[in-house]
Amino acid sequence: MSKLRVAVLGAKGRIGSEAVRAVEAAEDLELVAALGRGDKLETLVEAEAQVVVELTNPGAVMGNLDFCVRHGIHAVVGTTGWTDDRLAQLHTSLAASPEVGVLIAPNFSIGAVLTMQFAQQAARFFESVEVIELHHPNKADAPSGTAARTAQLIAAARKEAGSAPQPDATTTALDGARGADVDGIPVHSVRLRGLLAHQEVLLGGEGETLTIRHDSLHHSSFMPGILLGVRRVVTTPGLTMGLENFLDLG
Amino acid sequence: MSKLRVAVLGAKGRIGSEAVRAVEAAEDLELVAALGRGDKLETLVEAEAQVVVELTNPGAVMGNLDFCVRHGIHAVVGTTGWTDDRLAQLHTSLAASPEVGVLIAPNFSIGAVLTMQFAQQAARFFESVEVIELHHPNKADAPSGTAARTAQLIAAARKEAGSAPQPDATTTALDGARGADVDGIPVHSVRLRGLLAHQEVLLGGEGETLTIRHDSLHHSSFMPGILLGVRRVVTTPGLTMGLENFLDLG
Amino acid sequence: MSKLRVAVLGAKGRIGSEAVRAVEAAEDLELVAALGRGDKLETLVEAEAQVVVELTNPGAVMGNLDFCVRHGIHAVVGTTGWTDDRLAQLHTSLAASPEVGVLIAPNFSIGAVLTMQFAQQAARFFESVEVIELHHPNKADAPSGTAARTAQLIAAARKEAGSAPQPDATTTALDGARGADVDGIPVHSVRLRGLLAHQEVLLGGEGETLTIRHDSLHHSSFMPGILLGVRRVVTTPGLTMGLENFLDLG
Amino acid sequence: MSKLRVAVLGAKGRIGSEAVRAVEAAEDLELVAALGRGDKLETLVEAEAQVVVELTNPGAVMGNLDFCVRHGIHAVVGTTGWTDDRLAQLHTSLAASPEVGVLIAPNFSIGAVLTMQFAQQAARFFESVEVIELHHPNKADAPSGTAARTAQLIAAARKEAGSAPQPDATTTALDGARGADVDGIPVHSVRLRGLLAHQEVLLGGEGETLTIRHDSLHHSSFMPGILLGVRRVVTTPGLTMGLENFLDLG
Repeated sequence: MSKLRVAVLGAKGRIGSEAVRAVEAAEDLELVAALGRGDKLETLVEAEAQVVVELTNPGAVMGNLDFCVRHGIHAVVGTTGWTDDRLAQLHTSLAASPEVGVLIAPNFSIGAVLTMQFAQQAARFFESVEVIELHHPNKADAPSGTAARTAQLIAAARKEAGSAPQPDATTTALDGARGADVDGIPVHSVRLRGLLAHQEVLLGGEGETLTIRHDSLHHSSFMPGILLGVRRVVTTPGLTMGLENFLDLG
Repeated sequence: MSKLRVAVLGAKGRIGSEAVRAVEAAEDLELVAALGRGDKLETLVEAEAQVVVELTNPGAVMGNLDFCVRHGIHAVVGTTGWTDDRLAQLHTSLAASPEVGVLIAPNFSIGAVLTMQFAQQAARFFESVEVIELHHPNKADAPSGTAARTAQLIAAARKEAGSAPQPDATTTALDGARGADVDGIPVHSVRLRGLLAHQEVLLGGEGETLTIRHDSLHHSSFMPGILLGVRRVVTTPGLTMGLENFLDLG
Repeated sequence: MSKLRVAVLGAKGRIGSEAVRAVEAAEDLELVAALGRGDKLETLVEAEAQVVVELTNPGAVMGNLDFCVRHGIHAVVGTTGWTDDRLAQLHTSLAASPEVGVLIAPNFSIGAVLTMQFAQQAARFFESVEVIELHHPNKADAPSGTAARTAQLIAAARKEAGSAPQPDATTTALDGARGADVDGIPVHSVRLRGLLAHQEVLLGGEGETLTIRHDSLHHSSFMPGILLGVRRVVTTPGLTMGLENFLDLG
Repeated sequence: MSKLRVAVLGAKGRIGSEAVRAVEAAEDLELVAALGRGDKLETLVEAEAQVVVELTNPGAVMGNLDFCVRHGIHAVVGTTGWTDDRLAQLHTSLAASPEVGVLIAPNFSIGAVLTMQFAQQAARFFESVEVIELHHPNKADAPSGTAARTAQLIAAARKEAGSAPQPDATTTALDGARGADVDGIPVHSVRLRGLLAHQEVLLGGEGETLTIRHDSLHHSSFMPGILLGVRRVVTTPGLTMGLENFLDLG
């Protein structure tokens, strides 16, 4: 079987250099180009790249994707900064090259994506749901973006299912004890030296609880998700938003 | 909206009496009969029961279901002891009453069922999977039936996905340290005073882990699953094996 | 060996009736009296009680203890409502009967007491400490009294050790995300159906974390602590505040 | 206040180079020498080192300590391979220099040391104790040395307290399900990609459980313990075995 020809854009960055190594180590993939700032996109065509992994920055991503789509090169995109305008522009590019696939994913950690999926699926079966996220103390925002997003997805799933409000008889509370309220879901943020990035979704019903916990110990956790994206995007024309669509969960 | 007319068979048992209370407490259900040992099945017809909750014993269940199916009464069955012969016999009954629905479920805890489903779905994305189950010290078997079943489902999912064997460099081990081997999945059984019934599925990949934990604190945890079965079985003709089929998981 | 002669005051209450059973079940103890509301204290003398377990109410406890101390009967006290005035009054009683021992304990769960002790001992060795307490959703106060007390003890231990303030780079936070502030220790309160009473102390330092978790599943968890108090109070004259003093922790 | 003058032996190794950085970063310590293989010990005298951190190998440690003790230099020793003969030889050296302090510690992680201490202290109060250790899958031995040591300490504490055997009604078990037996304490070893080094001690009694968990995410977790040893060894003449003796736990 011939190997899939892969290029990495943003190959000198922290995640990019890790992606280079991951592609090189994969038996079914061949790294044909690793481009950094200033390198020419034409290299992708000369190298006959079939898929790019786009890990640059919001200032570069639109030009890179436009080039790839026009040249029939599929793309797995980790760069952020997507607005409605940008998405519309990408849709226009793709309409002219309907055989090309693009995956944009805010999170390539399969564990994080599964945690969100499972939390959404389980949320309507339990009376109570809360989220605890735990990070190193150098983090600037609380709760984490992932925890806020998880809580929003849970809240939406409960709304759709017509779930009752969560039971809570608290009448006397210290400020902050019951956490932040994200669409009705309490979210608690712990900041502790020695931790990296961790999240727990706690679901409780009559006589039982279900806990889904994700521990992220290294950004190498993004690699299996990026490689899975690379392998799947080549047979998935058009725009796909979110790695969960490639996990065949149901 | 008229209420669904529900009867409980085995209504004097520990789970049965709890089911009686749960049906009575549900606003959309009406308890029309609660039968114990020696009570006549004709009562079900007189009471115009639409669904029975069958919580008796292997010696009584076949006769009870035969009666119900012939009289067009749907059934949610928690009684165990199902063999291929018994299932074949039930299929024959149902063939003659194609409008009747029967749900047989080995476990009505929604948390336990979701744990198994999520573990199966996640198993192929991680290099390593192990199961830890923790119970009170009066339990006679190790591992628990639920843990063994969970491990079998995980192993089957990995086999289907073509997963590699789990990494394990152990060369020097005390007997038993690495747990029991259930189809290649290590299962560890903890027996501790103060515990009831708990199970953790640990999944690990490059730089991250995902943990799914179920804590069962009371057999009242079966009630939401039984009621969900009652509501769904009336519109699901034929035989359904396992509550997971009613959870709309994907 | 002759058995220790034990009486229970408040024997009809939830904890009291459990204490009656626990004393009866202990091989080295003999239940000689079980008094409820309206029963005469003289029974204690006639029954030759050596120790009472005092589980009544703030309105009755002072009279009960005064009687016991005067008659040379040791006491293990779970009744709450102790003020400085009441303690002073008890000290006066005890001064006149210096051979009598009284143990007053706000919490007889050995697990809860050890959690507080260990948290205090460990607190000065870690940069970060936070407390998460998790209870059923019918609880009125947040955080729990035990969690607030635990945080205060941790804060006091860190102050005494001259610990630096906890690292926390949070600059953007939703209200409540970082929990309640109890003497500088963040405390998070989770309220979830299916839970009973649980508490986690998380301590984090360079490259490692230590977690101490207490799960309370039944008020029978008070019994081992009450029996330990009974056995020790007879050889511990004077007033002892807190079960931790009987645990020989260092 | 003048700074304590510290030298590192084995300064090129993984832990040694980390120790060099940690000493340099500490405000109350001054790094006066960092010796690798082949460097002369006389440097320690010329640099007027007051304490050495000994992180070399079993072949070098005895000569290094003999030199230090003779020259009045205190030592904190992480090198392993201590036999009764070697300890006797060190005692002889120290007898001739009674003002010198030497700390030998098998583990400088304060979290690991506290876990063992707390487990020992708590063990006699609970009917059941089990240990779960979880590591990366490249580990060769199961259980880990730390888990085996923890179980031995727990077993010794229970024997001294006259604890009853652990309750366990298991009659039907798969091989290995109940873990390894270390002096009567079940120990379970999990090997999972994504993990580093983790250990849980679970203690269970009537109606409650206590869990002590240590997560080690980086060998930098040894540094606080090494620095604490450096500061304390200068005022603790003679040989001290184990960091726990410097933690003032009781």
